[in-house]
Amino acid sequence: MDRSKEDSFGGSITAGSDFLQLSVEDARAGGLSEWLADRFRSAICDGRLTVGSRLPASRQLARDLGVSRGVVTEAYQRLNEEGYVAGRGRSGTIVVGAPGRTPSARPRPVPGGAVPTDAVFTTSPGVEVFDSLRAAPARIDLSPGVPDLAAFPRAAWLRAERSLLADLESTALGYGDPRGSPALRAAVADWLARNRGILVDPAEVIITAGTAQAFGLLGEVLAEAGIGEVAVEDPGSLGARQHLHNRRLATPPVSVDADGMDVGALRATGAPAVLLTPAHQFPTGVVLGGDRRRELMRWVDEGGLIIEDDYDAEHRYDRPPVPALRSTLGERVCYAGSVSKLLAPALRIGWFLAPPRYRDAVVAAKRFADLGNAVLPQLVLARLMESGEMERHLRLLRRRHRRRRNAMIDAIRARLPEATVHGAAAGLHLTITFDTGFSDVDLAAASLARGVKVQPLSWHRQRPGRPGLVLGYAASAPTAIDDGVAVIGEALRRVR
Amino acid sequence: MDRSKEDSFGGSITAGSDFLQLSVEDARAGGLSEWLADRFRSAICDGRLTVGSRLPASRQLARDLGVSRGVVTEAYQRLNEEGYVAGRGRSGTIVVGAPGRTPSARPRPVPGGAVPTDAVFTTSPGVEVFDSLRAAPARIDLSPGVPDLAAFPRAAWLRAERSLLADLESTALGYGDPRGSPALRAAVADWLARNRGILVDPAEVIITAGTAQAFGLLGEVLAEAGIGEVAVEDPGSLGARQHLHNRRLATPPVSVDADGMDVGALRATGAPAVLLTPAHQFPTGVVLGGDRRRELMRWVDEGGLIIEDDYDAEHRYDRPPVPALRSTLGERVCYAGSVSKLLAPALRIGWFLAPPRYRDAVVAAKRFADLGNAVLPQLVLARLMESGEMERHLRLLRRRHRRRRNAMIDAIRARLPEATVHGAAAGLHLTITFDTGFSDVDLAAASLARGVKVQPLSWHRQRPGRPGLVLGYAASAPTAIDDGVAVIGEALRRVR
Repeated sequence: MDRSKEDSFGGSITAGSDFLQLSVEDARAGGLSEWLADRFRSAICDGRLTVGSRLPASRQLARDLGVSRGVVTEAYQRLNEEGYVAGRGRSGTIVVGAPGRTPSARPRPVPGGAVPTDAVFTTSPGVEVFDSLRAAPARIDLSPGVPDLAAFPRAAWLRAERSLLADLESTALGYGDPRGSPALRAAVADWLARNRGILVDPAEVIITAGTAQAFGLLGEVLAEAGIGEVAVEDPGSLGARQHLHNRRLATPPVSVDADGMDVGALRATGAPAVLLTPAHQFPTGVVLGGDRRRELMRWVDEGGLIIEDDYDAEHRYDRPPVPALRSTLGERVCYAGSVSKLLAPALRIGWFLAPPRYRDAVVAAKRFADLGNAVLPQLVLARLMESGEMERHLRLLRRRHRRRRNAMIDAIRARLPEATVHGAAAGLHLTITFDTGFSDVDLAAASLARGVKVQPLSWHRQRPGRPGLVLGYAASAPTAIDDGVAVIGEALRRVR
Repeated sequence: MDRSKEDSFGGSITAGSDFLQLSVEDARAGGLSEWLADRFRSAICDGRLTVGSRLPASRQLARDLGVSRGVVTEAYQRLNEEGYVAGRGRSGTIVVGAPGRTPSARPRPVPGGAVPTDAVFTTSPGVEVFDSLRAAPARIDLSPGVPDLAAFPRAAWLRAERSLLADLESTALGYGDPRGSPALRAAVADWLARNRGILVDPAEVIITAGTAQAFGLLGEVLAEAGIGEVAVEDPGSLGARQHLHNRRLATPPVSVDADGMDVGALRATGAPAVLLTPAHQFPTGVVLGGDRRRELMRWVDEGGLIIEDDYDAEHRYDRPPVPALRSTLGERVCYAGSVSKLLAPALRIGWFLAPPRYRDAVVAAKRFADLGNAVLPQLVLARLMESGEMERHLRLLRRRHRRRRNAMIDAIRARLPEATVHGAAAGLHLTITFDTGFSDVDLAAASLARGVKVQPLSWHRQRPGRPGLVLGYAASAPTAIDDGVAVIGEALRRVR
């Protein structure tokens, strides 16, 4: 390497300001104020400074540029007279308009948010379908998959964060362990032992950005290991299937009945791995029966790999607890859970247990994905888990969700008597099916056109089946639920 | 789908407790207390309940199990007499020991943290090398790449978070836009306009988990688009190279001199894309000269793709601002930046601008990666950017970092006079090289053995070159810097 000019550390070059990349060296001697005003005019006209932006304090900018304060105040005064900026007392000097340019309000809207409602529902939904559905405006949102977000323990979260920031070592704010913060991995291990019957060493817990990331990382690792397909439940989660397809894994469908996945049918696919939701099948809500668990155990003994999506097992209303497959089948099961249904999906925190043979590869994939989850939210969550706050929150949620579930069942009985309800004993959603043949995609579209957002059951099917809807109740008040179900009833009479 | 048992919503099954998956149906009639005590004994003995765990409040557990409170208190009393648990007043009933089992302290340590120091430094570092280096114990850490973490604006962060949680809509806690929160995307667009001369519509900003994720996602997209290699600077960041290799992209080396990357040499590689650090080359610290910029512009006109890693451009001490390539070459440049050097790497927040032809693919890759960054930290950061807090913080950092840089230069002059210093005009680190031939890996290992952590320059080289070290100064106090450089001097005398 040549000895560079920086080696000399000679006479300090006048530093400019970061602000607009101003460098006083560009100015003509004697015309500093005009030069500065001109730079601001250009920035306002070409949009680098939007209406509502605040200009730097004159004292600060003068120091940064190495000019007298008068140079800056004179430039600001000129811009003021020309109508570009205005003084706003303690708020400083604000850009108010660009003459000859329509002032734009801040923050600028991000396009792509509003989607025509008729574009959301297609029979072959693409990878952006959940984004489109989320962005579609609706009066009542009965999409499945979110808990009561109004119950998020904001005060407890802030309290825990304040308390941990009070004595956090600075080095914890650097790059961290890609497997997650030791404190959260220990708290998750304890949580899984108390609540899911799973005994695991904290060293084996991998913190992920939700189960979505866990499945993506695992899919990458399995594909790399030569596995070409992962069997899935049918009906089963469209989202999970999309994540597997993204890693070029085929997803042979396996039917689900009242006892859960048909293990004989799984065997018939010849797939080396299966993704399933044993505690509360998505979307039907059935529980994997004892015989099926034993059959699965034999399949695993023959070399099968289970990927257990334990997405909402903690939410039970009127049935005994269902232990995780991981608790009985041990390290032959990949296990994924998250706080998305316990606290909020927006936290993007989940946990993953990988069998020993895949663990290092999953950790490497996580490292390359993002160098590990953000640290502060992990540490806050660890505190909430350790202090018992999470269990308190879960009890609160369960009471609220039970009332909402009951409200939805009552509403369906009264307003959609032709529907059969499935999976109401647990979870955050229920599924309804209809005996007559019609398009549930049309029903969902007709409901959305009337302001009620739901998911058609057929989205979650790979093979044809009875039409239906997947209805989330956890995030809506009982009156909204009743209202929403009534709208679905109206829509049904139109499409059938 | 068969009509499942859940369809009936018949007689409510007695709900159990999540706690240890207890189900009162397993108990023999009449022996409830003994059954319950037995369940706790097993859980304590097999490790599901560790020493220090808190048992549920008796009233709560009795309600969950549907038994009288006396059943629970009697079970707790029995466990107490047997030495398993103890009452701790308002803290409740705590597990204190498992007879016949050595009590383990909580939280259990996560193994894998401590690494033998002689295992860290090898001439061909693997993908876990930065984890190993991070985990290695050291008295003084002069690794490059982190700002002064003690300056992290904890109070401002908490204030912003409290204020936004006070009026955040609950729906914001659900699944979000995979491209990032609109508020942060707008704030980043404004930040880039003010500080990096980049004009971009917020709709084009993609929020990522740091630049590491951005390069991973882009690598995935480029490989998919048939691009097999991305030229890189030599010396250049080992970490960035590892991320490209992970996506099976070759990284032909292009030499760097006092004016930055040699564009003629880039052209000679025939690579269709290049990753570079024009504002402050890593690790040499040189700035891409004006002639080189114009040459690069011609290369882009001929179809080349630039990936600009703008990792620490905001940190300047004694040179004029360097605009981003993205500000002049526009949408033909992929641009990545982050808060890792502005606030803290632990936040895992960065931003990425992709050329139109790759944008949708990058968004899809981000969606599959993690469904988008966590929302709360994005919104907090948006507030800090909009309120001017970030600029204040940057000014504070720059003052501190300049002092630390000067301390390091002084220490090198006094204690390592044989070293040539590079790249001191900006950034968070400087690079030193030596004219004599010896192994800088040995020097780094000898320094670490004496308690000082540094990176050997050869890690960041693909082709042989002068030995050297990359020394971070931003995160260490001046006295530690002086001390650390003295130790390097001692180590040098041993290895040379």
